[in-house]
Amino acid sequence: MEGAQAVREALAFGTVRELFVVDPERHAELIAAARDAGARISPVDERAAASLSDTVTPQGLVAVCDLLDVPVARALAGTPRLVAVCAGIADPGNAGTVVRVADAAGADAVLLAGDTVDPHNGKAVRASTGSVFHLPLARDRDAAAVLDACRAAGLTLLVADGHGELDLHAPEARPVLAGPVAWVFGGEAHGVPADLAAAADHRVRVPVHGRAESLNLATAAAVCLYASVAARRP
Amino acid sequence: MEGAQAVREALAFGTVRELFVVDPERHAELIAAARDAGARISPVDERAAASLSDTVTPQGLVAVCDLLDVPVARALAGTPRLVAVCAGIADPGNAGTVVRVADAAGADAVLLAGDTVDPHNGKAVRASTGSVFHLPLARDRDAAAVLDACRAAGLTLLVADGHGELDLHAPEARPVLAGPVAWVFGGEAHGVPADLAAAADHRVRVPVHGRAESLNLATAAAVCLYASVAARRP
Repeated sequence: MEGAQAVREALAFGTVRELFVVDPERHAELIAAARDAGARISPVDERAAASLSDTVTPQGLVAVCDLLDVPVARALAGTPRLVAVCAGIADPGNAGTVVRVADAAGADAVLLAGDTVDPHNGKAVRASTGSVFHLPLARDRDAAAVLDACRAAGLTLLVADGHGELDLHAPEARPVLAGPVAWVFGGEAHGVPADLAAAADHRVRVPVHGRAESLNLATAAAVCLYASVAARRP
Repeated sequence: MEGAQAVREALAFGTVRELFVVDPERHAELIAAARDAGARISPVDERAAASLSDTVTPQGLVAVCDLLDVPVARALAGTPRLVAVCAGIADPGNAGTVVRVADAAGADAVLLAGDTVDPHNGKAVRASTGSVFHLPLARDRDAAAVLDACRAAGLTLLVADGHGELDLHAPEARPVLAGPVAWVFGGEAHGVPADLAAAADHRVRVPVHGRAESLNLATAAAVCLYASVAARRP
């Protein structure tokens, strides 16, 4: 985790093992909190901090944290009502944004299935603006197994698909959206793999009214997840 | 406009003045269409094409087009029902994504007000994936004048604001959203300027249910614009 805001989230919601810091005086409060949390504090020079960083303007503050992901079964423990599944999302910024949107929509978990990017990727973490710490994340290369686990947890499987047979805003969609659902979002280029889409309960399209061909992945995910949120309101 | 897909949109919906091309044989069809549209065709070598490009991997195809924006009054001509206003959006990728989402939501126009980035910026054009050509765009540095024009066009002014007094999903929001509205989206850091927000009819918040602090600009815009789309469905 890099930068003051991210390290603050890590201290609040994660486990920080070690904190590398260029200017201890400037970050005195965070350092005290990290020390209290049992982290080792390591002063470094700017060159060392830059070599730890993958941003263009290193902030001189890098925390080494425990990995965040849990087994799929644990992420789906309890009675989940809203889950986001990333199935083959390659771009870390997109994956991180989906995690952020899922958090905001009150999702119970985000599952990263198939060839989806690692949510610990620095760009994914940054795009999530702390949300990687806020809800359970699980990873499994076997996307079909992830969908099976969702179904076993009582979730209706909805695949976001620009050509889906169910219009997100159709009256008959509302009771579906209001129930416990797992939304499945696919890769930027080809969407959700055909076999997974076919196995889902519904393929749902966000209606496109203008001359745009489609929405981008993150905005489509936001519209879908928030349609579930809206459908649950009395 | 850069690349085959973008040049195709420009030929279909805009005015192409000149087309610079590295490999005429590869793009024979586009070149024929550009010639038919009255554009001048200029073969260039890769180095020249790279100097015309602002992407990392130039595609060897660059079109010089007419500017796209029209006066605000013209963008609001007729009886607009859904308009997106960008008030101080600095990031071109965000601005382009808002244009794309507005297009998909069936908006009548996008107005770029105040210190908003130029929609002709290459990154904005690319993020819009052609949508800059699909609906009227207007620019005016005087953001208050833009909001006045929206009001004069019969639009209710809704400012997207994480701390707004009207919950997007509240029952009382629905009739508002179903009417003719202009959605105003502010900059990444500080949102819509306070004076503009105060002058609007409603400040509307997207409810945040998890531990996320907020949504990012493009996803919030998508949720807001599509809430209007949903409210209009019978």
